[in-house]
Amino acid sequence: MSDNAAAKGGPVVDYAHMHPKQIRQRFRDGLVETGTGKALGYVQAGLAILPRDFATDFLLFCHRNPKPCSVLEVTDPGDPILSYCAPGADVRTDLPKYRVYVDGEIADEPTDIARYWRPDLVAFVMAGALTWEYALLAAGIPIRHLEKGVAHPIYVTNIQCSPAGRLRGRLVTGMLPIPARLVARAVQISSRFPRAHGAPVHIGAPEYLGIADLQRPDYGDVPNIQPGDVPVFWATTVTALAIARDAKPPLMIVHAPNYVFIADMKSEELATG
Amino acid sequence: MSDNAAAKGGPVVDYAHMHPKQIRQRFRDGLVETGTGKALGYVQAGLAILPRDFATDFLLFCHRNPKPCSVLEVTDPGDPILSYCAPGADVRTDLPKYRVYVDGEIADEPTDIARYWRPDLVAFVMAGALTWEYALLAAGIPIRHLEKGVAHPIYVTNIQCSPAGRLRGRLVTGMLPIPARLVARAVQISSRFPRAHGAPVHIGAPEYLGIADLQRPDYGDVPNIQPGDVPVFWATTVTALAIARDAKPPLMIVHAPNYVFIADMKSEELATG
Repeated sequence: MSDNAAAKGGPVVDYAHMHPKQIRQRFRDGLVETGTGKALGYVQAGLAILPRDFATDFLLFCHRNPKPCSVLEVTDPGDPILSYCAPGADVRTDLPKYRVYVDGEIADEPTDIARYWRPDLVAFVMAGALTWEYALLAAGIPIRHLEKGVAHPIYVTNIQCSPAGRLRGRLVTGMLPIPARLVARAVQISSRFPRAHGAPVHIGAPEYLGIADLQRPDYGDVPNIQPGDVPVFWATTVTALAIARDAKPPLMIVHAPNYVFIADMKSEELATG
Repeated sequence: MSDNAAAKGGPVVDYAHMHPKQIRQRFRDGLVETGTGKALGYVQAGLAILPRDFATDFLLFCHRNPKPCSVLEVTDPGDPILSYCAPGADVRTDLPKYRVYVDGEIADEPTDIARYWRPDLVAFVMAGALTWEYALLAAGIPIRHLEKGVAHPIYVTNIQCSPAGRLRGRLVTGMLPIPARLVARAVQISSRFPRAHGAPVHIGAPEYLGIADLQRPDYGDVPNIQPGDVPVFWATTVTALAIARDAKPPLMIVHAPNYVFIADMKSEELATG
């Protein structure tokens, strides 16, 4: 959209190097864009908001399944203001787009959720793989879906997550096709971010992960696999969102796919070593 | 052989937990066994001995190709005694078996090389992958060739090493078939040992490494690949030995395959983090 603005003679906005606070202000002011290419080097995170009753199960589920569900922050019931990963940010307004589920069905896709807020809601902020995508690119590792301008292919696997209360289901993974000579480097880089999914859960042999056909992802777009690429699978926060939705809570609000939260925390703050 | 001793009613020798000094003493006393399963957690290393004239090229080659050629120690010309990785060890006697090349051809396979020693010889000790094999096993990663009791399959790749003087040629890799779910862990573990080959150079897609048929390794035995295993390739010191041999030095002495040197240095001393 910044390119569009330039094409229309408007100002070019350098979102890549803008501080997350300023980008969140633009989201509050009505900008509706995804997190890709914005605030490079800052943590990007998924959001899940649930009634307190379901929040207990959700927190326990995340605790038992830390690879897909890297919880950065949990708010107190009824408090929409974050204090750790982006102090002062308001989860009701500071994302570009939300998805509202009622009884497990999509009910709305608003750009703020003030009218849905209730005193029993608890918000979970979960670090995503976009947190370290910049580090892969810096190491010369191609991101094939970015090259094509399409969405990250996402697959449900045959790995059962550890259940928690009403929440049970299978691990969901995002896949990056990576040249065979760069796979080890991608493992090293993502391993530095154990609080953002960390190392891949599976490399190569997708049929042994329960994936019959790479060309038919469960979410996202058909993968762009180049000759010599190996499919590398990382756990994704989609796991928690899909499993919570399947439990049909009376109300659940999440970020709209790819319209994630941008935190004030630098990615390197989450890195080991 | 310790099992044989037991079968014959002799004492069982616990080589796995014996100190390298004691094992080297046994090698000096005539024991001829490979390093596998001995002095677990200590550095195991390849040996190359060359005349000073070739040693310069060799050292430069290793410097330019650190992934295959992780040099732990280089002796002064004519001095057969190590001072760093196993102080006091004598490279002429402390390995179980050697291979002597004259003008690039195998001339002898003795159990000590005292009679070949000359004042212009320089010895190189190069850490090998056996240094961290115990760490893979400790993490529950199967070593498929050990399960079959066969040799590690080794392949010449299409990757050209950086040349140095008369030494030029292609990278040689050792391959471990690893279950797809454990590949990332194997990368993490070997990454901790950058002075012993470090991370894999290639994962999956062997045809893009110039390997037409995994069933026909250039050295070692046919691989034991189980369903769901992915071939993972690490640089090996065989690279340096094969390339030096191809340059046909008047004399070159190396460890006989698998009959490596066991240093006093603990593997963890070589590890990062």
